Amino acid sequence: MYGTAVAVFLVILVAALQGSAPPENPFPYRIPLDPEGTLELSWNVSYAQEAIHFQLLVRDLRAGVLFGMSDRGQLENADLVVLWTDGDRAYFGDAWSDQKGQIHLDSQQDYQLLRAQKTPEGLYLLFKRSFGTCDPKDYFIEDGTVHLVYGILEQPIPSLEAINTSGLQTGLQRVQLLKPNISVPVLPDDLSTMEVRSPDILIPGQETTYWCYIIELPAGFSRHHIVMYEPIVTTGNEALVHHMEVFQCAAEFESFPRFNGPCDSKMKPERLNYCRHVLAAWALGAKAFYYPEEAGLAFGGPGSSRFLRLEVHYHNPLKIQGRRDSSGIRLYYTSSLRRFDAGIMELGLVYTPVMAIPPREPTFVLTGYCTDKCTQLALPPSGIHIFASQLHTHLTGRKVVTVLARGGREKEVVNRDNHYSPHFQEIRMLKKVVSVHPGDVLITSCTYNTEDRELATVGGFGILEEMCVNYVHYYPQTQLELCKSAVDPGFLQKYFHIVNRFNSEDVCTCPQTSVLQQFASVPWNSFNRDMLKALYGFAPISMHCNKSSAVRFQGEWDLQPLPEIISTLEEPTPQCPASRAQGPSGPTVVSIGGGRG
Amino acid sequence: MYGTAVAVFLVILVAALQGSAPPENPFPYRIPLDPEGTLELSWNVSYAQEAIHFQLLVRDLRAGVLFGMSDRGQLENADLVVLWTDGDRAYFGDAWSDQKGQIHLDSQQDYQLLRAQKTPEGLYLLFKRSFGTCDPKDYFIEDGTVHLVYGILEQPIPSLEAINTSGLQTGLQRVQLLKPNISVPVLPDDLSTMEVRSPDILIPGQETTYWCYIIELPAGFSRHHIVMYEPIVTTGNEALVHHMEVFQCAAEFESFPRFNGPCDSKMKPERLNYCRHVLAAWALGAKAFYYPEEAGLAFGGPGSSRFLRLEVHYHNPLKIQGRRDSSGIRLYYTSSLRRFDAGIMELGLVYTPVMAIPPREPTFVLTGYCTDKCTQLALPPSGIHIFASQLHTHLTGRKVVTVLARGGREKEVVNRDNHYSPHFQEIRMLKKVVSVHPGDVLITSCTYNTEDRELATVGGFGILEEMCVNYVHYYPQTQLELCKSAVDPGFLQKYFHIVNRFNSEDVCTCPQTSVLQQFASVPWNSFNRDMLKALYGFAPISMHCNKSSAVRFQGEWDLQPLPEIISTLEEPTPQCPASRAQGPSGPTVVSIGGGRG
Repeated sequence: MYGTAVAVFLVILVAALQGSAPPENPFPYRIPLDPEGTLELSWNVSYAQEAIHFQLLVRDLRAGVLFGMSDRGQLENADLVVLWTDGDRAYFGDAWSDQKGQIHLDSQQDYQLLRAQKTPEGLYLLFKRSFGTCDPKDYFIEDGTVHLVYGILEQPIPSLEAINTSGLQTGLQRVQLLKPNISVPVLPDDLSTMEVRSPDILIPGQETTYWCYIIELPAGFSRHHIVMYEPIVTTGNEALVHHMEVFQCAAEFESFPRFNGPCDSKMKPERLNYCRHVLAAWALGAKAFYYPEEAGLAFGGPGSSRFLRLEVHYHNPLKIQGRRDSSGIRLYYTSSLRRFDAGIMELGLVYTPVMAIPPREPTFVLTGYCTDKCTQLALPPSGIHIFASQLHTHLTGRKVVTVLARGGREKEVVNRDNHYSPHFQEIRMLKKVVSVHPGDVLITSCTYNTEDRELATVGGFGILEEMCVNYVHYYPQTQLELCKSAVDPGFLQKYFHIVNRFNSEDVCTCPQTSVLQQFASVPWNSFNRDMLKALYGFAPISMHCNKSSAVRFQGEWDLQPLPEIISTLEEPTPQCPASRAQGPSGPTVVSIGGGRG
Repeated sequence: MYGTAVAVFLVILVAALQGSAPPENPFPYRIPLDPEGTLELSWNVSYAQEAIHFQLLVRDLRAGVLFGMSDRGQLENADLVVLWTDGDRAYFGDAWSDQKGQIHLDSQQDYQLLRAQKTPEGLYLLFKRSFGTCDPKDYFIEDGTVHLVYGILEQPIPSLEAINTSGLQTGLQRVQLLKPNISVPVLPDDLSTMEVRSPDILIPGQETTYWCYIIELPAGFSRHHIVMYEPIVTTGNEALVHHMEVFQCAAEFESFPRFNGPCDSKMKPERLNYCRHVLAAWALGAKAFYYPEEAGLAFGGPGSSRFLRLEVHYHNPLKIQGRRDSSGIRLYYTSSLRRFDAGIMELGLVYTPVMAIPPREPTFVLTGYCTDKCTQLALPPSGIHIFASQLHTHLTGRKVVTVLARGGREKEVVNRDNHYSPHFQEIRMLKKVVSVHPGDVLITSCTYNTEDRELATVGGFGILEEMCVNYVHYYPQTQLELCKSAVDPGFLQKYFHIVNRFNSEDVCTCPQTSVLQQFASVPWNSFNRDMLKALYGFAPISMHCNKSSAVRFQGEWDLQPLPEIISTLEEPTPQCPASRAQGPSGPTVVSIGGGRG
């Protein structure tokens, strides 16, 4: 029926070339979009031009493809490019989808097609997009997670409006598009490598698997510095291996049992829960991780466990059976210890139910503080240097940001992700190292969405409870492992008393009632919601300024005043391109060689 | 010194002509910008193109002019066009000023110069601007008040950055740029006119004068309908006459004393305070006011006072002496009564101290309701039709909006002014008549700025107290004169109790303490501010659903639930021009004929 049209469409050879030529440097980043790897995206970033060049490989082109970005990976309210055919000609256009998922051509064409090329591998589309356009319908590409969306058109369509997205094969892929532009540090001459990888396992034919594998360092393995690491992904499994982490086990235990199996297996020994100290982490789309030239992550030697745990998250939505895998992480280490040990510090909120999110909130913000009093006491006079960060929440987390304040003024963003997803927790190198001095304040805010919850979501360890954490990687290592806060529990009790005054004594304020029970009995009207926000924005806090998770620095840490902030940083906004590359006002006709069939 | 340059500059004849030609229809709206009338702005509005054509007449051109718009008339953060000379050539460019008032050329040139013409009157500049551009630095021209700013350049400048705005003659003028596009209703054949104007008075040589003058309708003047009115401004005083209102006196009194003098004069008889029923109002830049074809404003006849009060506000910042004036309003009326009497209804907040604004708030919103229960009871089954609106607050008012909601959903904006100024209170004809049916809800919200206040600002009649009112003009007239609300006083007392619980018993909650005293003793920390907002957004209200200011409709009006709104209208946002007229990326050189000197 439309075989002819598709055939015509497939003879595209080289098409519209306009605007700037593709850059010299090809595409350092690459990611498969769909689980079958039919669509593959490569890209590079020009911070000078504030633009990204995308190369989309379409392996088995039918009648067209949709590609784009949206707030959280939905196909509604998305910013799209569409390649499509009406059965006669082929078109490339900048489009957008409304809140019903209906697709419309954009009045401003901000994706600029540079090349369309058919090869034996498939069709390569090369196009360019500025980080920000001045079209309010467009997505603003910023630091942190970007939710890429795609769709595959099986049939020619008369117009974009005729696309019914609910009938297409569509999906999403999370990625950090704006990779930091970091020059590779000089590596030592005596570099050794160690591959921590799964031992040719059979990937289970289920959507989600966390695989656990224990390895042991050689006996007598002395103290070394890890200076970089990189992923090893078994060829063919690129679309299945979602993320991987290497943990070091606790030094308190002489030995750990061997294990090779799903992390949630009943056969998994209890003791493996003590293997939680992160040595390395990788997620889809990430490249090698480098420590700064002055620092390395210590492992081996006395006081350090010889046991490591590899965890691999396989994401297998098509439930492919029988696939074998040996993916893992390659650690690069040296015995010539660098000047500084690197450390990891936990910022944000204490895991306690006093910090809670009411149900049915589209955006509710909780904030944790690392106060000036704590940094004054625990940081060296010359300060510390944060070079990487891993953000962490549980299921309702939607945004995370840590800001550094000095003298009551916000000075610098340590890390911000406005499209954070709990399903995509990478360790990210910072674009710029952030130095923290004694007396500085670090403010970590998490935004949650509890629209699908019936009851308040309280802080805690459970997967249905919440966290707000930023693991910052820094040097030189200090004794400060944890700098977090929570609201003062006495003030929370005052809150429950007010709730009762405005309502009909719903909340029991007797001492034997748990905070969890108290939150569960709050009637969530607008007053009680607003007042909880007001409480968290006003009440004094209890600080955890700790050497390890249980040992506090000496001092008074209860009923501390909230840090006062007199000037805040502005959120980044799109820069309109200085001189707008005047794109076409309609779609580009992609020139088609050859005749009909 | 720079006489030559100025001379060269003055021989501009006809310059750059680009883009669309000036429209057929010339400029229906005109306003002087400065008190001396050196700068005069004319304009027209094209709703089809979403653009305004401006014609700026510069009578005594020196080295250039600045013209533009800003949020509230400040020269900082303003969106500007600048005509300037560097002593050699003349330039026209789109510019913006930063928060320090420093002027920069805009990277996007959105003001489009169409013509520059020297005439014996002065230099005419014709230029065009879209309502919205996609430049975040640009002002978005929307309904309601626009604060125009201007400046006069006395000397050539090497570049825009060299302009020191603090050294210039600058000023602001408020105007409604987006006039409604209403076709003039058919007028009756037996139209009579009556001029209510000041009797050739001497304008006082002080900045602000409100002049009061009482006139009397002829004895036996029967019932008529006013169907339109227009301003009469004495030639030469266009920049001095700021606004004028005609009030009818109360019918309870047989007669009123004659008076002709400043309204704040000690000689003014007390009784004139009973002349407050608005018959007509005009403010700078407004044109004739027309009633809809089906309705007229009744005056004359039994039950209607024969006494009218004219109030003229003279704004005389240069303190010009000896100027005589006979400005006023010309009423057009008919004895062939139209089908419907027009009425005026008061929406918003009751004048009571229970509605208060904390001090030092940049934007604090108070909301008054006209509930479904009241409209159900008081409106006819076929509803009423609002065709005009006058917004009213006292000194801290910054925005006012009234929205109509039906079935819990906001449906339509009755009137919105995002740049409202208490110094510019016009009666504005609506672009679109809004019909209100029994069961509808009218929600009026006012935004206040109390950054310069030390104590809470409470609701009330005093000029330092606040109001939030929308006088809506509608037909057919009903008995409902007032549909307003305020928070329930009992819930406000609960608020003061909570304030005491979180602080040190600052607020006296004994019965003899006035609400004013209670608000004055609240310590304004973030919790007490947030909680007051939460209270106003939650607590039940007391409704005033009144036939006249003292007589309520029958029913229970205390402790009414706040109307529940499940979906809100979005604020208007700039539409990016569909196909952007690609302006120059730098300033336009205005071609100069003739030579030096």
